[in-house]
Amino acid sequence: MPEVVRLARARLTRIVEPGWAVAGRWLREFGPVETLRRIDEAEERTDGPLPLPGVRAERWAGLLARAREAPPAERDLERVAKLGARFVCPGDAEWPGQLDDLGDERPVGLWVRGGPSLRMWALRSVAVVGARACTDYGVRMSASLGAGLAERGWVVVSGGAYGIDAAAHRGALGAAGATVAVLACGVDRVYPRGHTQLIDRIAEQGLVIGELPPGDHPTPSRFILRNRVIAALTRGTVVVEAAYRSGALGTARWAQRLGRHAMGVPGPVTSGLSGGVHELLRKEGVLVTDAEEVVELVGAMGELAPERRGPVLPRDLLPAATARVLAALPGRGARTVAEIGREAGTSADDTIGRLYELRSLGFVERHGESWQLTRQAIRGVFSDGGPP
Amino acid sequence: MPEVVRLARARLTRIVEPGWAVAGRWLREFGPVETLRRIDEAEERTDGPLPLPGVRAERWAGLLARAREAPPAERDLERVAKLGARFVCPGDAEWPGQLDDLGDERPVGLWVRGGPSLRMWALRSVAVVGARACTDYGVRMSASLGAGLAERGWVVVSGGAYGIDAAAHRGALGAAGATVAVLACGVDRVYPRGHTQLIDRIAEQGLVIGELPPGDHPTPSRFILRNRVIAALTRGTVVVEAAYRSGALGTARWAQRLGRHAMGVPGPVTSGLSGGVHELLRKEGVLVTDAEEVVELVGAMGELAPERRGPVLPRDLLPAATARVLAALPGRGARTVAEIGREAGTSADDTIGRLYELRSLGFVERHGESWQLTRQAIRGVFSDGGPP
Repeated sequence: MPEVVRLARARLTRIVEPGWAVAGRWLREFGPVETLRRIDEAEERTDGPLPLPGVRAERWAGLLARAREAPPAERDLERVAKLGARFVCPGDAEWPGQLDDLGDERPVGLWVRGGPSLRMWALRSVAVVGARACTDYGVRMSASLGAGLAERGWVVVSGGAYGIDAAAHRGALGAAGATVAVLACGVDRVYPRGHTQLIDRIAEQGLVIGELPPGDHPTPSRFILRNRVIAALTRGTVVVEAAYRSGALGTARWAQRLGRHAMGVPGPVTSGLSGGVHELLRKEGVLVTDAEEVVELVGAMGELAPERRGPVLPRDLLPAATARVLAALPGRGARTVAEIGREAGTSADDTIGRLYELRSLGFVERHGESWQLTRQAIRGVFSDGGPP
Repeated sequence: MPEVVRLARARLTRIVEPGWAVAGRWLREFGPVETLRRIDEAEERTDGPLPLPGVRAERWAGLLARAREAPPAERDLERVAKLGARFVCPGDAEWPGQLDDLGDERPVGLWVRGGPSLRMWALRSVAVVGARACTDYGVRMSASLGAGLAERGWVVVSGGAYGIDAAAHRGALGAAGATVAVLACGVDRVYPRGHTQLIDRIAEQGLVIGELPPGDHPTPSRFILRNRVIAALTRGTVVVEAAYRSGALGTARWAQRLGRHAMGVPGPVTSGLSGGVHELLRKEGVLVTDAEEVVELVGAMGELAPERRGPVLPRDLLPAATARVLAALPGRGARTVAEIGREAGTSADDTIGRLYELRSLGFVERHGESWQLTRQAIRGVFSDGGPP
């Protein structure tokens, strides 16, 4: 993809609001470079028809004001690079193709902080979301789902918020697992403030991503639109606790609309925080009580893909460090992250990241604390005869 | 129906076990009188083919032993008459036709203790069942469902057991509602012993029924087979709390098999007593959190029947006391049970029984503590122009 297109998309994340379908149509019809050109050159005009269709005059004026203030994309890219972050957009190898299901509401691009490949991780991911002001029961269930999904080789996606979200992230982190926080602000910002340590930890062991450019702040509508990214990125959304009309239910509704699984953890009928979940479960949502049941559901589609004969990804196309991690797994038996990292010469966080990438590719699988080669990898159905 | 047929069926409840499909086929093929004759006359025979098909020799011997000990049906009928009880069987006006869905496992007949018409009451009934050793949460939910269903004019059916069953009965009784206990023993016996007062109270304000003849005791298999009657009698079964492999889940499975609604009340995943319910809810059971949601589901079928034009039952065919209760309802507005009973000259229990019968016929409806004429009754769509 030409660098000029990436730069245009990066700069457009400063100018158009997430999930705005009108801008999505511009990108589809005119492409990012031409769309940006029409916005930038429009600054001179004061009357006549607008250079881009479907937008009202006031909104257009606000858009031009943001464009005038927006720094060059290069400066934003430099700014996030210092955090070890990058910009990923449609056309990039790391772009998660499932986000295209959002149509014109697809993100213009995503700012990504953390080592692992977003595309690889998102392939086998599940969202665990819920109320901020949750109960002890909710914390317990969310943490246990986060840990259980991680132990089964699944990536736990959530919104980084207090309550259910945080418990899910922490459950996955604590189980030496993979977790992704999707923020409604710049990935260099921490929201909520109290989660500075948690978000930093997720960025080290996992990924922190968002549509908003560096420094940008969350707004109520940004929280709501962020939820569509969580739903689209994952194979299913589990709502742990949610009152009626909560944002987490919105994520589940997005999941249903996008053909993903919408799941809910039941709770006491006497708890208002289970009320929204029960409402979901009465409307086609699937009741789940543990990670096993979640995996049973979301694993059903595509889970057998590595079984098919033929190459998934030739081993010699893997990045060098990933190939070393793969080589550190024994032909028979299992190893812990620490053992694998020691042999591959990779840090614990880096090892975890690469193991979950290899998991998505069908090379390895996780059972509790241990990782091992898949039967397919051992049988050598991969194009190069599989790992040693 | 000829009295000799009723007497044969009554006596057969002493001889064949509930839900035994082989005996069901005998009744279908030979009729009750001939079936009984072949059993009674077989006492003389010692060899050759058995006079009734499909039964093994040992079982046949046990059956003959029971037949020899069985008193004449007249004596059993006299015995229960002293309790205000009666025998109701297929062909009787009071027989609930939906039990025929059980095919050859249909009860031979039912011993019925209490004033109201079993057939009328069963038309608009829901089963609420669950664990004996339940939690406080379960008691609370069951009692609230029992009361809520009663307040909406629905009859609450359960098994008279400790725990969830008792709470459902008590909830209905406490709301001046209608409730039916289906026992796995004679209706003159009390099981469990600790429920003497409860069962007596149900027999006064509601109905106590069962397949077993007077004096007969419960056995494990009789409890299990009793559940098919609960499921078949009602429009749906709600399981409030149940461990895996509990009897209450068996009732729900029967309900599903018979095309009734199987419903479950969710609870904390951390409670083993909600485990069975969640299992049900993951297998086509419908999640319900209150009586309103139960009624929404079971009321859907046939709920509109009274809306149709034309007679449901002419008022002049109602028993005299029932007609007096109907006449005690004002043309406009609502009255309590006490007010209606005072005007009709009926006791509170009797008034409740007749009001729920009238409810099934579409004449009246209940809203909380008050009863009123239905719009259909006021409009006079009944054959005699409706109540005054």
